[in-house]
Amino acid sequence: MWHLYHFPLCPFSRKVQLSLGEKKIGYELVTLYPWDADESFHRLNPAGRVPVLYDAAKKVALIDSQAICEYLEETVSDRPLLIGSARARAEIRRLVALFDENFYGDITGPLLHEKMRKRLVLRQSPDSRVLRETMRLLHEHLDYIDWLVDNRRWLAGAQLSLADFAAASQISVVDYLGGIDWSDHESAHGWYRVIKSRPSFAPLLRQKMDGLPAPKHYADVNA
Amino acid sequence: MWHLYHFPLCPFSRKVQLSLGEKKIGYELVTLYPWDADESFHRLNPAGRVPVLYDAAKKVALIDSQAICEYLEETVSDRPLLIGSARARAEIRRLVALFDENFYGDITGPLLHEKMRKRLVLRQSPDSRVLRETMRLLHEHLDYIDWLVDNRRWLAGAQLSLADFAAASQISVVDYLGGIDWSDHESAHGWYRVIKSRPSFAPLLRQKMDGLPAPKHYADVNA
Ligand SMILES: N[C@@H](CCC(=O)N[C@@H](CS)C(=O)NCC(=O)O)C(=O)O
Ligand SMILES: N[C@@H](CCC(=O)N[C@@H](CS)C(=O)NCC(=O)O)C(=O)O
Repeated sequence: MWHLYHFPLCPFSRKVQLSLGEKKIGYELVTLYPWDADESFHRLNPAGRVPVLYDAAKKVALIDSQAICEYLEETVSDRPLLIGSARARAEIRRLVALFDENFYGDITGPLLHEKMRKRLVLRQSPDSRVLRETMRLLHEHLDYIDWLVDNRRWLAGAQLSLADFAAASQISVVDYLGGIDWSDHESAHGWYRVIKSRPSFAPLLRQKMDGLPAPKHYADVNA
Repeated sequence: MWHLYHFPLCPFSRKVQLSLGEKKIGYELVTLYPWDADESFHRLNPAGRVPVLYDAAKKVALIDSQAICEYLEETVSDRPLLIGSARARAEIRRLVALFDENFYGDITGPLLHEKMRKRLVLRQSPDSRVLRETMRLLHEHLDYIDWLVDNRRWLAGAQLSLADFAAASQISVVDYLGGIDWSDHESAHGWYRVIKSRPSFAPLLRQKMDGLPAPKHYADVNA
């Protein structure tokens, strides 16, 4: 049985949950806050990060969301998410990296720091200058998603792929942390509503972070 | 013909060069400093980063070092670098991510900022506190490499893999930027000397960054 070490607002754990959900692979969640992790978790993952997908009986510990998704892709043929020619797969992986690294670095990471860590761990108030800058960068990234959606059926091309789920994972965390101003981003908004209403997304919309309530619209698939 | 957009001290471009070299794929280098990039480069890569592997005739632009290495793996069967079972491949990818993200985030990234960008772009002097902290973290990472080398033939297991080249790419940049104190890290040092003496590594040892000379021992494969 797979156990997924995660915490509710980790976007990379969300990406893995969406892969597992799309492929209909069973698993149980184990909540782990990296800032509270003990020695035994560091033995499992020396990098001290989530997600980790662990099968205790088989002694398999998979680490790093992209390594996990590639593994699921190689071992489960249901609902392939890295599809097409080598070139098409390179385009999917480019976009996954764009969302995992640039979107996360510009927006999700700073927001998690300001709105989650400062509140729950550091007991500080958020820096409004940082918040404003992330909102500015969010609009740039949403512009790019608009452009992709206006030019392609899905983010990476004609098929739904891991790129869509990587992007939606980041966006769902940003949405939880305060909502997104979708005005001027109708294309991106339409695309996100479609992803959000997939069955694989439902568990994410139910997960709550203790001490940090989600805004009302968050779990509404029509919002 | 492939063109690789890179700059000499970008560790991710080095990882791609090593893959290309191991697989004996021809290419030409194009030097690109992201901080000086113009509109035409941003059209090629909206993320504004190197490496980009570009074939103008075929209109293929591959972006993100890992997406590039996966593409080379899928299209060129010579010298596979992501080898073995799905589980073995997951272990290779875990380590690649560890070096690309954690080692880079702890050490190579801060060092490039302090010793390269501050000198060549910002005209500031390095912050000695940051330099000391990176050296401390370097020893922790070298301890982990020692442990891997003491327990396995190569970093990810019985076979030479992309994990070795990802690690050596980061280390070679740190070495260029000031040398590494290998005392207490004999195992890691022995492993690095072996990688460094491979033919695929020779071009990296010749590349120089304008205005930033390498230390004498840098290109010495016995050092
Ligand atoms: N590239 C990694 C990123 C994982 C990551 O950054 N996880 C965060 C939580 S969202 C974490 O565990 N951070 C704790 C730390 O770095 O100490 C992946 O895709 O799995
Ligand atoms: N994950 C990316 C990282 C690429 C990256 O960070 N490149 C740096 C140079 S070492 C860069 O171009 N930075 C410029 C920027 O971020 O604006 C990869 O593996 O290709």
